[in-house]
Amino acid sequence: MNTVVLKFGGTSVGNVDRIKKVCKIISFYKKNKKRVLVVSSAMSGATNDLVKISKLISHNFDKAEYDTLVSTGEQTSCALIAGRLNHLGIKSRSWMSWQIPVETEGAHSAARISRINVRELNNFLKQGGVPVVTGFQGINNKNRITTIGRSGSDATAIMLAKFIKADECIIYTDVDGVYTTDPRQYKNAKKIKKIFYDEMLEMASLGSKVMQPTSVQDAKLNNINIQVKSSFRTNTGTLITGLKKSFSDKIITGISSTKNDAKITIVGVKDRPGIAASIFKPLSKNLINVDMVVQNISQNGKETDLTFTIKSEDFKKTEKLIKKNKKITYKKISFDKNVSKVSIIGVGMITSPGITYRMFRALASKKINILVISTSEIKISVLVSRENVKKAIAVLHKEFNLD
Amino acid sequence: MNTVVLKFGGTSVGNVDRIKKVCKIISFYKKNKKRVLVVSSAMSGATNDLVKISKLISHNFDKAEYDTLVSTGEQTSCALIAGRLNHLGIKSRSWMSWQIPVETEGAHSAARISRINVRELNNFLKQGGVPVVTGFQGINNKNRITTIGRSGSDATAIMLAKFIKADECIIYTDVDGVYTTDPRQYKNAKKIKKIFYDEMLEMASLGSKVMQPTSVQDAKLNNINIQVKSSFRTNTGTLITGLKKSFSDKIITGISSTKNDAKITIVGVKDRPGIAASIFKPLSKNLINVDMVVQNISQNGKETDLTFTIKSEDFKKTEKLIKKNKKITYKKISFDKNVSKVSIIGVGMITSPGITYRMFRALASKKINILVISTSEIKISVLVSRENVKKAIAVLHKEFNLD
Repeated sequence: MNTVVLKFGGTSVGNVDRIKKVCKIISFYKKNKKRVLVVSSAMSGATNDLVKISKLISHNFDKAEYDTLVSTGEQTSCALIAGRLNHLGIKSRSWMSWQIPVETEGAHSAARISRINVRELNNFLKQGGVPVVTGFQGINNKNRITTIGRSGSDATAIMLAKFIKADECIIYTDVDGVYTTDPRQYKNAKKIKKIFYDEMLEMASLGSKVMQPTSVQDAKLNNINIQVKSSFRTNTGTLITGLKKSFSDKIITGISSTKNDAKITIVGVKDRPGIAASIFKPLSKNLINVDMVVQNISQNGKETDLTFTIKSEDFKKTEKLIKKNKKITYKKISFDKNVSKVSIIGVGMITSPGITYRMFRALASKKINILVISTSEIKISVLVSRENVKKAIAVLHKEFNLD
Repeated sequence: MNTVVLKFGGTSVGNVDRIKKVCKIISFYKKNKKRVLVVSSAMSGATNDLVKISKLISHNFDKAEYDTLVSTGEQTSCALIAGRLNHLGIKSRSWMSWQIPVETEGAHSAARISRINVRELNNFLKQGGVPVVTGFQGINNKNRITTIGRSGSDATAIMLAKFIKADECIIYTDVDGVYTTDPRQYKNAKKIKKIFYDEMLEMASLGSKVMQPTSVQDAKLNNINIQVKSSFRTNTGTLITGLKKSFSDKIITGISSTKNDAKITIVGVKDRPGIAASIFKPLSKNLINVDMVVQNISQNGKETDLTFTIKSEDFKKTEKLIKKNKKITYKKISFDKNVSKVSIIGVGMITSPGITYRMFRALASKKINILVISTSEIKISVLVSRENVKKAIAVLHKEFNLD
């Protein structure tokens, strides 16, 4: 008998009607003779409401109490789902993470699942029951409630799928899958039927909101097939899976773009060995993530221009850190907050030469200027002026036959 | 060092401002060098909101899931209180009942606390910390969350006071103590400074809303001194305590009245041994509580009139059960839904003869007709027409020098 883990996100269980709908979806799997384990997030809005209250209580709310507070959200949704399933005549019960237990390591609000004792869950599944497990949370070695960060319910589902040896893990969310590019940016965007972990990792890191990179990484490490589907519509979703021998026929799987990049250029930096390190060390210390970097070859061997990108929200802090950095001398700092990174992603590019050339040619044909370039094995990113993003996506989508 | 248990009810922690106020009260005890353990109810309204949602999910919501659902209320309030105390620089942490654990026996939603492991709590108290414990809930021997019925937080506080050997248990609520009679019924009602368990038991059973009888019983059995106080005002409350050698100087401690009694008279019942049992057995089976009973002496040895009182809400069911009872024959059933029970309570009456006479004389002086009488060692109750309740309370309050 097939075993599936079904994970429902916050909007999927956002109100009483949605919970009833979700229980119909679950009953459909039961009718199809599946063993079903459910993982649920908190009802959408519930967690944010609790966070708001905690801020009124203290601007520096105790981390452990914060986790205790917000974890009530999943307890509520899971009790309601199990209550509804029983109402429908489907044997079910909720499991709080401490009842299983789901053991975690690491700091409060950023814990990671280390071990899950699935004995009780497996027994209940064997008896035909549907366990409903709280996502997003666990306990630490002090028996206190921990949470595993936003979107942590995906991680719970993936780790449970691993430990109960499920055949599939289906992530129900408010979008119906992963698209070749953001449909709001380009109307010809197509849903991807199958995407490989590494591609999905790049997509997630580069702005696709469907899944967090850490969850994709978990799935990859544990070789769990993930189906991303909409709980609002019935059409098929996107399968996220491992690279099989039969290669993808497509070179490029998807195109992503970012909205919150900023470009900084330090002009006329006095060039000497280790100058880049001197610039980036204070940024790193302040948790500012430097993404793309390009250093011009110095014309006279004395001075160089260094360009790099950061998140827009880090801009002011970065400017301040550079200005008070006494280890560097330079002529001026220039910056551009109207830039975006456009990336093409696909494992196919490993075996297909000339992709970079095709990308640059396509962009040039639309007179789109490339500001910075960065590449990895399965991804090429270019920084362009934000006004060119839509045009860039459109021309690349056509160039790589995604339309 | 003195150890106190402070219990806060739902209205006392009803919003962010109230929680801040409660934490000021707690800090006051800490400044006075007390060891403090806090028990909290859910924020007022929170539990009712959850109950409403559960009814929308199922009109027959699973009992175990119901307990899991509503227990989130205390988890929220306790995390917020502990968060606030830490904000104020007072070392504190929340304990969910499963973390302690608070072990319970009995059915879901009506469990009773059987054992509390206070080792961790005691250690934390010794370190100067303030444990904040969820009231109203525990776990059963299947490791599932149970609740101990409405007002169950009082029971949690009393049992914790017992197990940690606290010197006092202070119940903070929205009234500032126990009154000689309901102040809404009689403006000269006075706050009682000290009341004995047995008196409080009678008061609670007879309609005083301050504490549930089961909680008073718990306190009595474990000899826990209880102080009932308002978290909204600073004046002293009422001490509920055991009978010491120094007797009360007052004969009567308080007067209570009910609002939801109904009187039923079965006229012309064929009298035979065991007839009362035949009438009451089906009522008992249907969980209908018969309160006062009076049977007229049959005039001719053949027929009798039987009068008894029940809760108004049980009226229709009772009427139906009597009508379909084939073991009895009678002429007719008459009933009166406009009756109330007025009771005087006081351990002093054990040693003071003539109280019944003084009560009846006082009522007669105001031409108040007594419909039924029932007495216990420390209580005399009379059933009167509901229109006479206020008058009866006033004349009795004066008669027994409570004004």
